[in-house]
Amino acid sequence: MVVPTWIYLIVLFGLSILTILREPIYICILAAILAGLATHKLIPSFKPQLIKARLCGTDMHKKDKRLLPEAVGVVSGMSYIVCLCLLIPFPFVKWFLNEKNGSQLNQEEFPHHKFEEFIAGILSIVSMLFLGIIDDVLNLRWRQKLLFPTIATLPLLMVYIVSYGVTTIVVPIPLRPIFGRIIELGPLYYIYMGMVAVFCTNAINIHAGINGLEVGQSIVIALSIIINDFHFLLTGAQPAVEAHTFSLFFLIPFVAVSIPLLWYNWYPSEVFVGDSFCYFAGMTFAVVGILGHFSKTLLLFFIPQIFNFLYSCPQIFKLVECPRHRLPGYDEKNNKLYASRADLTLPGAVSKYGKIILKIFEFLRLVDIEYDEKTKEMKSVNNFTLLNLFLIKFGPRSEKNLAYMMILVQILSSALAFFIRYKLVDLVY
Amino acid sequence: MVVPTWIYLIVLFGLSILTILREPIYICILAAILAGLATHKLIPSFKPQLIKARLCGTDMHKKDKRLLPEAVGVVSGMSYIVCLCLLIPFPFVKWFLNEKNGSQLNQEEFPHHKFEEFIAGILSIVSMLFLGIIDDVLNLRWRQKLLFPTIATLPLLMVYIVSYGVTTIVVPIPLRPIFGRIIELGPLYYIYMGMVAVFCTNAINIHAGINGLEVGQSIVIALSIIINDFHFLLTGAQPAVEAHTFSLFFLIPFVAVSIPLLWYNWYPSEVFVGDSFCYFAGMTFAVVGILGHFSKTLLLFFIPQIFNFLYSCPQIFKLVECPRHRLPGYDEKNNKLYASRADLTLPGAVSKYGKIILKIFEFLRLVDIEYDEKTKEMKSVNNFTLLNLFLIKFGPRSEKNLAYMMILVQILSSALAFFIRYKLVDLVY
Repeated sequence: MVVPTWIYLIVLFGLSILTILREPIYICILAAILAGLATHKLIPSFKPQLIKARLCGTDMHKKDKRLLPEAVGVVSGMSYIVCLCLLIPFPFVKWFLNEKNGSQLNQEEFPHHKFEEFIAGILSIVSMLFLGIIDDVLNLRWRQKLLFPTIATLPLLMVYIVSYGVTTIVVPIPLRPIFGRIIELGPLYYIYMGMVAVFCTNAINIHAGINGLEVGQSIVIALSIIINDFHFLLTGAQPAVEAHTFSLFFLIPFVAVSIPLLWYNWYPSEVFVGDSFCYFAGMTFAVVGILGHFSKTLLLFFIPQIFNFLYSCPQIFKLVECPRHRLPGYDEKNNKLYASRADLTLPGAVSKYGKIILKIFEFLRLVDIEYDEKTKEMKSVNNFTLLNLFLIKFGPRSEKNLAYMMILVQILSSALAFFIRYKLVDLVY
Repeated sequence: MVVPTWIYLIVLFGLSILTILREPIYICILAAILAGLATHKLIPSFKPQLIKARLCGTDMHKKDKRLLPEAVGVVSGMSYIVCLCLLIPFPFVKWFLNEKNGSQLNQEEFPHHKFEEFIAGILSIVSMLFLGIIDDVLNLRWRQKLLFPTIATLPLLMVYIVSYGVTTIVVPIPLRPIFGRIIELGPLYYIYMGMVAVFCTNAINIHAGINGLEVGQSIVIALSIIINDFHFLLTGAQPAVEAHTFSLFFLIPFVAVSIPLLWYNWYPSEVFVGDSFCYFAGMTFAVVGILGHFSKTLLLFFIPQIFNFLYSCPQIFKLVECPRHRLPGYDEKNNKLYASRADLTLPGAVSKYGKIILKIFEFLRLVDIEYDEKTKEMKSVNNFTLLNLFLIKFGPRSEKNLAYMMILVQILSSALAFFIRYKLVDLVY
C-alpha cells in the first residue's frame, strides 16, 4: 500500500496552520503523523538495499524459510531522529518570537535546562541507534553491548546533575523507622540511573524472537507512558507538567514511527526490526524516564521484561546450560511453535547452584524438566524465556497466537503497573 | 604491532594525576592519547568482523587486487564518541566541585551555553557517523546524503541562535562604500552555516580515492585548525579563548583517533576508511568552525577541497559525461596510476554549456582533451578531479608518490590559508 501524496499535502497544510497557532504539542502530533507516513513509505524502498547489503536473515518459524531484510528499525530510527531534530525549536518558539520582536536576546529567560534535556536526549538515542546498526552489521560482543549504553547515558546524567541534581529518594512508610523519611543516595543514584538505561536498552532485545513482539511491546510501553503523561498534564503541578510534556515530545513521534514498522513486522513478517530498533526504543524510554523523573514508574511498565530477565539469569550466567539460540522451536507439520529445550546431559550442563535453582523453579512450577525414566536424572529443561514459559504452560500454538498473547500480557502488566502506581502506592507512601 | 598493556597503565596513571590537578586541556590531551591507543588496538580486532559482514572492497590500485575491510572509520568514530562523552564533565569540573563543597546548586553561574555547545556538537557528529555507517552498508542516494547533514546541523544552529545569535558580518573595506561597515544577514547567515556543514561533510568524501588520502588530508586540516587555536589561546581575548578551547576539545581527540587509522590506511592499505570517516571528520570541522565562530577561516583550510569541488562541478551537474567512478586508472605493468578519462563520443556526452566550459578549462590548461586526428572532434577528456589533474600535469606515478603529493598540497594550502588570514586580511579589513 502506497500512501498517496495528497495525504502528505494535507498533513503539511495542517502543520503550517498549527505552526502559526504555535501550540507545540499539536505540532509534535502532526510532525509525528508525517514521520509515520514517511516511514511507511520508506520501509519498502529500503528493502532491496538491505537485502543487497546482505543485511537479511531467515524466518525460522515459517514453512518456506523466507529470507527477510534485517535491521529495518534503522529506517524508523532515521525518521524519528529527523522528526525530533525538526521539532527542537518548537517548545522554544515563544522565546524566539520575543527575541525577534526587537527586544534583546535574553540569556537569563531562556529555559536552558529544557533545551539541554532535549539535545542530550536526542544524543543518547542517536548513539544507541549508531550502536544498533553496528551490532546488526557486525554482531558485537556482550562486553561492548554493555559498555556503550553506559557511556551513551553520560550526557543524560550530566544534564540531570546540571538541571536538577536531586539524588534523594522518599523512603516507603514501613522502612522509615530504620532509614528516616528521605535518603540521600548521592553518586549511587547516578549509578542506579545508568543501570536503568542499560537495562532498558537490552530488555526489549532479550524479550524477542517472534514476529511483531519487539515493536508490539514497545508500542504498548510507549502508550502506557503517554497515558501516564496525560494523567499528569490534566492534574499535575507545574514541574510535573513540564517533565511530562517533555516525555510526550519524545514518545508521540516514537509511536508514530513504530506503527508502520509493526505493520510490516507483524505476522507474517516482511521485515525484521533488528537490534537497532530494540536499542533505540529502549533508550527512548530511558531518556524520558530519567529526565522526566519517573524512572521507578517507568520500570513498572517493564514488568514482563524484568520477569523475563530474572527468569533468564540462570542461563545468562551459565549456571544452567545455555544454547546459542533460545527461540521457540517450530513444528512444520502443524505450523506451531513449541518450547525449545536445553540439553542437561552435556558435561557441566548444570552447576551446583544451577541444581538448586532448577529445584526452586520446579517447585514454583516455572520449568518443565524431563527426567530419565531409569536413572531419574534430569535430561532436559525448557529454555528460560517468557516465550518458552508460555509455551509449556499453554501448550504449542501458532506464532500469531503467541504474539497476541504476549501483547495481551504486556497490556495487562501495564494495567497492573497503573494499579500499583496509583492505588497500592498510597499504602506505603 | 600490539600496544603493550603497561602503556595503557602509564597513560591511565597520568590521567588520574591530571584529574586531580584539574586542568581540562591536559586531561583532554591524555584522554585523546588513550583513545588513540585504543583505536590502534581495536582496528585489527574489527577487521575479521567487517569482512564477515561483507563490508569489504577490492583495492583497485594493486596488482593482487586484495579484498580489504571497509568502513573502518567507524572504529575511530566509536573511540572518538566515547572519548568525547567521557570528557564532557571536565570543562565544568570547577562548577561541580563548588557545588559539592556544600554551596547550593547554582543554576545562574553554570556556563549553560558552553555545555549546550558541547552536547549539540557531539550530537551532530554522532548523527553523521550514523549516516556514514548506513551509507557504507546501504549506499545511499545523493538526495539522502544532502538531506541528512542539513538536518543534523539543526541542533548546532539552534545552539548558535541561543548562545550568540550574531548574524552580522564585517564588510571588506573595498565594499564598504556600497554595503556599509556591517551587514545584518539574518536568516541568510543560518543558511550559510548550514551550507558550510553540508560542504564539509561531503568535501572530504569527494577528494578521495587513493590510499591514505581521506585521513591524511583530515589530519592536516585538523592540525592547521589546532595551530590556529593555539595562536588565539596565546594571544587572544576572553571570548576568543573560550571558543578556541572548545575547538581543541573536539580536535585533539579527533587527531588522536585518526593517526592509527592513517597507520593502517596508508599505502599499502590494510583497511579502507569508508564514508563514515569522511562524514564524521567533515562534521567535526563544521562543528568547531560554526560554534567557534571561525567558519570563514575554516573554509580557508579547505582550499584543495573547494578547488576539487568547483573543478568537479561540470561532471557532477552532468554538463560533461560523468562515469560511475572517477578514480585514477591503474597500470599493472609499471605499478603506476594514470588519469582516468571520460568518453566524449557517447551520445549527449557534452551539453552546450559543457562545451563552453571545456574550452575555458582548456584555455586555463586545466584539462587534457584528446582530439580525433581526422574530424578534429573531441574524443575524451580526463575526469575532473584534483587527483587526475595532478596526474595529467606531472605524469603517471605510483600511488604512494601521489598520496605524498596530495598531503604536501594540503600542507601548502594551509600555509597559504595562514598567509591570507593573518597577512592579506589586513589589506581588506
